Amino acid sequence: MPSAAIVVIGDEILSGKFAEANASWLVGELRELGVAVGHIQVIPDVVEDIRDAVRADAGRFDHVFTSGGVGPTHDDVTIAGVAMAFGVGVVRHPQLEAELRAYYGELILPAHLRMAEVPEGAALIGADHPSWPVTSIRNVYILPGVPIIFRKKFASIRERFRARPFFGRRFYLMADEGSVAGDLDAVVAAHPGIAVGSYPRFDERDYRVMVTLEAKDQELVDAAARDLGARLGERVVRSE
Amino acid sequence: MPSAAIVVIGDEILSGKFAEANASWLVGELRELGVAVGHIQVIPDVVEDIRDAVRADAGRFDHVFTSGGVGPTHDDVTIAGVAMAFGVGVVRHPQLEAELRAYYGELILPAHLRMAEVPEGAALIGADHPSWPVTSIRNVYILPGVPIIFRKKFASIRERFRARPFFGRRFYLMADEGSVAGDLDAVVAAHPGIAVGSYPRFDERDYRVMVTLEAKDQELVDAAARDLGARLGERVVRSE
Repeated sequence: MPSAAIVVIGDEILSGKFAEANASWLVGELRELGVAVGHIQVIPDVVEDIRDAVRADAGRFDHVFTSGGVGPTHDDVTIAGVAMAFGVGVVRHPQLEAELRAYYGELILPAHLRMAEVPEGAALIGADHPSWPVTSIRNVYILPGVPIIFRKKFASIRERFRARPFFGRRFYLMADEGSVAGDLDAVVAAHPGIAVGSYPRFDERDYRVMVTLEAKDQELVDAAARDLGARLGERVVRSE
Repeated sequence: MPSAAIVVIGDEILSGKFAEANASWLVGELRELGVAVGHIQVIPDVVEDIRDAVRADAGRFDHVFTSGGVGPTHDDVTIAGVAMAFGVGVVRHPQLEAELRAYYGELILPAHLRMAEVPEGAALIGADHPSWPVTSIRNVYILPGVPIIFRKKFASIRERFRARPFFGRRFYLMADEGSVAGDLDAVVAAHPGIAVGSYPRFDERDYRVMVTLEAKDQELVDAAARDLGARLGERVVRSE
C-alpha cells in the first residue's frame, strides 16, 4: 500500500496567522487515490528543520509532499532544506530560469531568479501546462504554499499516485463507547488487515459513537461489517 | 520565549475522515498566550509513533500538548506511547478510577477503567472542575481528541502557560513579491530579533503581498515598521 507524508513549511501556520489549508486538502485527495498518509507535520521556515523533516519522512514513506517556502523572499528556504536533506547542492534550473525571464522580461530581479533554484538532480514534472511544473527530487514533491497554486500544481501530477482504492463502512451507534470496546476488540482480533476506528461524539443528536472499518479488500471489509453488525445488533442506529 | 509542540494522534485525521480541529485551534490560543509553537504533527494510532514523536518534541520544546487516543477502545494508545517516551510504565490513577466508578456505578466495565490509566509519575492538573483533570507528565499535557472536551480541558490549564505577549504589525502591499524582496532583506538584516514574514496572495482584491513583523518587544517592532514603511513608500496599501 503506497504511503505518504506531508510537510507544511510555514511560520504563518505555526503563529496562527493563516489556517492550514494545504495538508488538510491533500489528505483527502491522497486517500481518494488509495494512498495512506502516515505523517503530517507543520514546521517553521528554518532550513535545518526542513532538512530533518524531509530526510526522516523521505526515508519512511513512499511519497513526501512539501508545502510552502518556495517564493522569492528571505523566508523561502524550502529548496535549500530539501537539498540538504539529500546532501546535494542548489542549482538554477535552465527551464525555470527561461520561464521566469520570459515572464518578467526586463523587470526581472535577482530575487525572482531564486524561484529558478532546485536541489541538484531535481526533475520538473507535471505535463498539463508547461508553466506550472512541479519540482521533484527522488520521492519528494515540492509544492507552493499559496493554496490555489498548491491545488493546481498537485492536480497536474495527481494521477501518478493512483493506487488500489480503500473500501470502508461506517456504523453509527447509540451506545457508550466503553460498552462496545469488547465487541470492537473481538472484530479487530478476528479480522486482521482491517483498520477499525472508534470515534465518540457528544454533540450529535442521533448517535454517540461512529465506528469505521477500512481496508483495500472489499470482501474483507464486508466480512468484518457482517461480524460487527451481528455483535452490535440494535445499538447500530444506521450504517453506510 | 516559551515554546511548544502539538502532537495530534489520530488515524481519522490522516485518513481524511475528520478535519483537524484541535491543533488548528490550540495554535491560536498559544500564540495569544505568548507561546511560540514550533512543531505540529499528526501521527497514527500507533504506540511507537507516539513514543517517538513525544520523546523528540518533549526534548526540543518547553511544552508538548497531545490530542487524541485516550478513550476506552483498542485504538486509544496515547497513554502507553507517552509512558514509553519517558521509559515508565502505565498505572491506574486512584483519583481517575474513583471518578469513573462514581460515574458508571455498577455498569462499569474493564474498558472504562482504561481511562483511569496514566504514565507512571503523571499528575492530574486543572483545578476549575474536579471531573475534568488533565493528565500531565513532565512537560507533556495529554488532551482528548473530541474537540469540545479538548477545548474545555485546555481552558482549565491555559493560564499556566501565559508569557510575555507577541507584538505584531502587518503591511498590505500592492506589489510583486520579488520586487520587495531586497527591501525585506534589508529590514531583516537591520532588525535582528524581528520575525519578518512575506505572504503573496493572488485572490485578494486590494493587495498582492502581506508582510508581517513580529517580536516580543514592541519598540523593536515599531522601529522595524518605521523602516519598512519608509522603504516601501506608496507600495503600502494599508497597515495595521
